[in-house]
Formats: sequence, structure tokens, C-alpha cells
Amino acid sequence: MNVNEIIKTKRDMKELSKEQIDYFISEYSKGNIPDYQASSLLMAIYLNGMKEREILDLTLAMAHSGDFLDLSEIKGIKVDKHSTGGIGDKVTMVVMPLVASCGVPVAKMSGRGLGYTQGTIDKLNAIPGFKTDLSMEQFINNVKSIGIALMSQTENIALADKKLYALRDVTGTVESIPLIASSVMSKKLASGADKILLEVTCGSGAFMDSPMRAQMLAETMVKIGNMAGKETVAVLTNMNQPLGRFCGNALEAKEAIDILSGKGEKDVNMVCGVLGAHMLKLAGVGNDIVENMKLIQSKIDNREGLQKFKEMIGYQGGSIGVIDNPDSLMTAKFQIPINSVEDGFVESIEAKNIGQAVVNLGGGRLKKDDPVDLAVGIEVLKKIGDEVKQGEPIMIIHANDENKAYSQITFLRESYTFTKEKVEKPKEILGVIDGEN
Amino acid sequence: MNVNEIIKTKRDMKELSKEQIDYFISEYSKGNIPDYQASSLLMAIYLNGMKEREILDLTLAMAHSGDFLDLSEIKGIKVDKHSTGGIGDKVTMVVMPLVASCGVPVAKMSGRGLGYTQGTIDKLNAIPGFKTDLSMEQFINNVKSIGIALMSQTENIALADKKLYALRDVTGTVESIPLIASSVMSKKLASGADKILLEVTCGSGAFMDSPMRAQMLAETMVKIGNMAGKETVAVLTNMNQPLGRFCGNALEAKEAIDILSGKGEKDVNMVCGVLGAHMLKLAGVGNDIVENMKLIQSKIDNREGLQKFKEMIGYQGGSIGVIDNPDSLMTAKFQIPINSVEDGFVESIEAKNIGQAVVNLGGGRLKKDDPVDLAVGIEVLKKIGDEVKQGEPIMIIHANDENKAYSQITFLRESYTFTKEKVEKPKEILGVIDGEN
Repeated sequence: MNVNEIIKTKRDMKELSKEQIDYFISEYSKGNIPDYQASSLLMAIYLNGMKEREILDLTLAMAHSGDFLDLSEIKGIKVDKHSTGGIGDKVTMVVMPLVASCGVPVAKMSGRGLGYTQGTIDKLNAIPGFKTDLSMEQFINNVKSIGIALMSQTENIALADKKLYALRDVTGTVESIPLIASSVMSKKLASGADKILLEVTCGSGAFMDSPMRAQMLAETMVKIGNMAGKETVAVLTNMNQPLGRFCGNALEAKEAIDILSGKGEKDVNMVCGVLGAHMLKLAGVGNDIVENMKLIQSKIDNREGLQKFKEMIGYQGGSIGVIDNPDSLMTAKFQIPINSVEDGFVESIEAKNIGQAVVNLGGGRLKKDDPVDLAVGIEVLKKIGDEVKQGEPIMIIHANDENKAYSQITFLRESYTFTKEKVEKPKEILGVIDGEN
Repeated sequence: MNVNEIIKTKRDMKELSKEQIDYFISEYSKGNIPDYQASSLLMAIYLNGMKEREILDLTLAMAHSGDFLDLSEIKGIKVDKHSTGGIGDKVTMVVMPLVASCGVPVAKMSGRGLGYTQGTIDKLNAIPGFKTDLSMEQFINNVKSIGIALMSQTENIALADKKLYALRDVTGTVESIPLIASSVMSKKLASGADKILLEVTCGSGAFMDSPMRAQMLAETMVKIGNMAGKETVAVLTNMNQPLGRFCGNALEAKEAIDILSGKGEKDVNMVCGVLGAHMLKLAGVGNDIVENMKLIQSKIDNREGLQKFKEMIGYQGGSIGVIDNPDSLMTAKFQIPINSVEDGFVESIEAKNIGQAVVNLGGGRLKKDDPVDLAVGIEVLKKIGDEVKQGEPIMIIHANDENKAYSQITFLRESYTFTKEKVEKPKEILGVIDGEN
């Protein structure tokens, strides 16, 4: 087989055969196909698209390019969860203990943050002592013992995707539905869960800023998951503003504890409730989403979710004291409020900029191995629809470096627009897509 | 400036600025931009196209990426000629001496062959002793002394194009009008001529197989040349069958002498006449193409073109004896005829296959540094419209290796299709495009 012919096939808008896709992924993984041929093919895929059959084949080829985990030792239906990323998205830390407290086994691998979104693993690392690099044996044993474990994704999952993702990042080929869908789903399929719940974020803080593109991505991933034999459901969520109150690693870990303690903000509570309810449905706990949401809420009210989180922290070497005393989590030296310069209602927030400001404060990575300051972040006091008086704080910058903090003020302030008219609060959930759509 | 942003600009169908193009070409030439980013951009250009302004900027940036020749020492209007390549295309060897014999200075650089087309330089190298790697000083002095010199293109012309062309060849991005046009025109602009005549070939033996694409390419190159301040004219020629009688280096050198001796076949005579006439017009010899064609024919009839060719051979160290005795040129050991298996009229010839067969016999290059057997080739006895009887030879294979020859018979025979109906002889000239179109 000849790579140049594979490139020309996609360039000329024809369908790639399974053999062509398998050959490309296998030879590229082995280093037998140079990056310059791969990137040319990626751009042709970006611009000319792929049929579902091709995306499935690409997903499966990438899923099999690395380790393929076997979670069959764990009894029950394992439901994985994945978010396409957002600002202030601490949902995994909240939902997973809640679902586990309902008796559903949770064996979840998460990623580190890159770019303007922060990763669950970094957030958990803000808990003193918490170990996220478990061995597979520990990981499975923890789930068997307490029903939950949350570890960082092993290096060897979907190796081809890892290599291709790094290439896409520097060749203008990230925002492609076939490429995003196959990247996400290859990792999910290789991670060994029985069913998959996807949170597809949409808005100014997400990969997909248009609802139509988000829906297309969600439909594609759901189709691929189901075609690969894993029941998959996607929930479309609004990411036109940060989720909840805090953005930043330790700040979000603390907020997760708050939410599990019944002190969460309405928007993040709603997202956690709906995602949790769909996970319960996938796990066979109950088919009625409203009932499932009530069950999730009861696990917040009776603190069983919080207890499960505490148990997990304990099993993974973390300091369980943070549960009873969240303020013991690391804090930044400086808290600098940003005040509104006008009266009005918050009309919009450029959520990506809030995530970018966290990175600029040192709380995120531009490159894979950048060190991260876990304590810094942004506290969002006013959200879309809130009324604001001139001089009233809209955000608080949590920083360890005063100069860095001051350098972000204009950037952050300009992320907000105001209007004199009353603004409706945005809906948190934009839709649900399952295999029956 | 950031290459990823440049890639995204073209990916999103926006226009690249002059600054973006200059940055890309300059940094890519220096090795500061990796091939994997360049190939992604090339595919985006291939699929999303470029406006004339962008193609001009790309052409100029590439033209200035290497040596920029100064031919101002040579008096008179220097007209360069370029063909987009064809099978059996020995036109340069014929037209240049004819034009020079009309008093127009000819300072022409040519390329070596690659793939299924053979290059003028290889054909001239079949003349014993003929030197094609002149110094710039020799080159200019020869033109000053005898009005003609023909040398191989220096390594340093349009360096960025050289690097990009090698990349395009392996990333499915060759057949793009903006990329072909800028590649050709960057070399022409850097080669120092005052005016440019382009032969854009079209058909089964050319880059462009559809007349519409050939016309688009021609129009683009003419526009670019004129925008860059060099009057440029393109002649569209038919390349649905080999031009003239022979394909192969020494065979074509011999045929060039035949044509200059008044023994050329009708099709190649016509192409040489029309191209020569347009060069004379560009050089200011006369505006009437029919009159110019008659002048060219007179230079064949009175052998002044042949004398000029002989003079050039002598000045470049070649054996001038070949002019009076063309049979002294090297010949291959075996002449193996291919006979027709049916009666009928030749309906079509897959010209590219004839070129490929020459390569398969050892007479061309697959890679830049492959050795070439100059003696081998294909003699085309029957062309489109010719009547053929079963058992009559349609081609003769000239080979130095009998087994290689026999291995090509079926491939070559299947390049012909026949029909019982009479077939019209194809037109040689499909159109002329000048700046006034």
C-alpha cells in the first residue's frame, strides 16, 4: 500500500477503505510514515470529511494501537464519562462519587489539562497526597473494594491518537468532527468500560462554539460508540460561561467538595444531576431520568457522595481532612477583585478567556510538560443574567504573583459584556442524544 | 508570526497576506518550518485554492528564495520558453536554434527528466561531449558570441520551490493549479528572461488531462507573469499522444536533427512552428503569427536553424559530427516491433504509458539521482487516426535489455485503443492565451 495514494483518495473526496485506514494508523504508529504525509492526510480529512464507516474504522484502528484495558474482573456495568472540555468543569469529581454511591462501579481514567481547559487529574492533585498514577492492579482492586477509582490515563492508551493529536495541534487540524470523534472514542473504547456517557460542551468556552457543530459531534460519537458495540449517550451542555463558581485546580477541588456538601451553585448542580442520571440509566439503575436525578440529589443531601469521595481520597493516599475542612486546601497569596465599571446585566462572558487567564496566572499548561501552579485561578461572582452595580466585584483573581494578576485585569474585564436590558439565565442542558435518535 | 495561524487561514478559505506568504517561504527555506506544517498548508491550498494575488506573492517569494539571474549583459529581448511536460516533447531542442537563427538571443535553462517525462538536458546529453553544466559566465558569453546557449538549471534557482516540489511529490499535492503555476513561474522569473512563452500541454500524456484545467493553468500563469511585469503568452498543445515519432533521449536528439533538416513529422512541425512564431512575436520580430511561422519554416528549409544547433553543440563541447550523421548517435541493442492484433483506426493512445515504458526500459528517472540509459526508447509508428492492419507494427521498442523490452509489450499494446470507424486526426494547437484575454 502507498501512503501517497491514501492521501489522494481522501483529497479527491473518495472514501478510505478499512485496509487503507488500518495501514495508515499501524504504519504511522510504528514511525514508518513521516509526519509530513500524515499532516497532509489530516488536512484532507479536515476539509473533505469522513463517512461514519470511515470514522468507525479510524476509531477502532486507533483504539487498538495501544493497550486495550480489560475491566471484566469488576462486576457490574462500568460506565465511562468523557467531557469535550470546558471552563470550570469539575463535574467528573462530583458525579463519579455520586454515581458510585448509588452502587455503580466507577473505574475512570482522566487526562491532564492542556491549553485553556484544566484537567481532572490536576484538580485532584491539589489534594495533598492524592495519587493519580495507580497501577492497573491497584486501580481495579480499589474499584472492587470501594466501588470507585480515578486515575490518570496511562501512557499507552490509543498510542496512535496521542501521536496524531500532537501533530494536529501544530498543523491546524484540531477542530474536525471526524478527527475529534475518533480521538475521543478511541480512548473510550480502549479504556474498557461497558457503556459511555459523553458530555459535549458548546459555547464560548468549548471546542465547539456553535450548537449545530456540537450536536453533529455528539451524534457522530454516539453513532461510533454504538456501532462499536458500546451503548453511548451524549448530553449537550452550555459552556457559554464558566461552570459553577471557580476556575483553577485547587479552587475547583474545593468547589467539588462544596457541591457534594449541598452547597453547589445551581448551574453546576444541574449539569451534575443530569449527567449522573444518564449514567445511572446506562448502568441499569433506572430508566426514568427525573427519578435518577432525585436519587443523585438524595446522595448529595445525605452526604453519601461526599463520603464516597472521601473514601476514594483515602484509598489513593490523599489527605481525607480536606473533606471536613476544605479551606485547608492550598490557597493563593493574593485575592484581587475586579469591579464592574458600569451598571447593567451580564449579557455574555468570553469563557475561553477565563480559562486562558488561569493559564496566564500559571495554573495551566501550554506545553505537555509545563509545571502548573495548582493554587491560582479565577472566582466568577457574576454570571450571565446577573444584575451588576458599578463598583461591584464581578470576579476575583486568585494569584501567587501580584504582577501576573494585574496583567490579567483588563483582559478579564473585557471578557464580559453588559446590557441595560434584563437578560435571561441560559439553560444548562441543550439536549440529549442517544442511539435511538 | 505563527505557522499554525497561517495554515488555519487557508484552511478556513481566507486569503493569505503577502506577509504570511513571505514568512512561510522564507522560514521554510531556512529549515525553520517543519515539513509537516508545510504539507498541511499545501493540502489546504490544494483544496481551497488561492486568489491571483496570493499566487503572485507565492511566486515572487519563491523566485527570490534562490539566485536571481541577471541577463542584462545580453542585448535584445530574451524570451524564455517552458513546457509543462509531455511525451516525446523535443520542441525546445528544435525551436531554440530556429528562434536564435532569426536573431533573437536564446539563453535557456532546462531541467532534467523526472517520472514519465524526459528532460531536454538528458536529451542533449545524448550528444557526445555536449556540456550542459556551463558556468554563468560561459552561458552569457556563448549567447553573446553565437546568440544561443542551453544549460541545465542551476541548483540555486528558486530554492524554496525545489524543497516544496519534493514535498508535494509525496503528499498528494502536485496537481494544484496555484502550486504548479507558482512553481513554474518562480523559476521563470528567477531565470532572468524579459518575456516568457509557455507551452501548456493537455491530454493523456500531460499533468493536465482536461482542456478546461489546462486552460485555467495557462490563464493563471499568463496573469502571474504579466502581473510580475514580464509579458507572458501561453500556447495550449495537445498531448493526447506522443509528439513526433520518438520517445527516449538519444532518439529524440536524433529526431530534433531530423526536424531541423526538414524531415519532421507534421504534428511536431506544427507545434514548433506555432511556438517559435509566438516567441518571435514576443521578441519584437513581427506581430503576424502566420508570417512568423513562415519565417520559422524558412529557417528549416535553408538549414539555418540546423546550423545554429550545430554551432551551439560546438560551443558547448559536443561532437558536431552528429548533425551531418545523426545515425552516429548512440543506439540501443534491440529493436523489437509491437504488432497490432487487430484491423482498425487508432482511436486513442494512453501517452503517459509510453513515457512510463521509457522509464521502465531504463530511459528515465524515478528518483532524482537515478542513472539514465540514454539510448533506449519507444518509436511510435501509428498515431491517432492512422489506419492499422492486423500484424502491422504500431511501435518499436528500442532496448538494451531484451527481457525489459518483452516485459513492456502488453503494457504498451494496451495503451492503444482501436475502432472500426474512421477517426479524425487531433488538432495540435488547442489555443493561445495572452495578457489581453
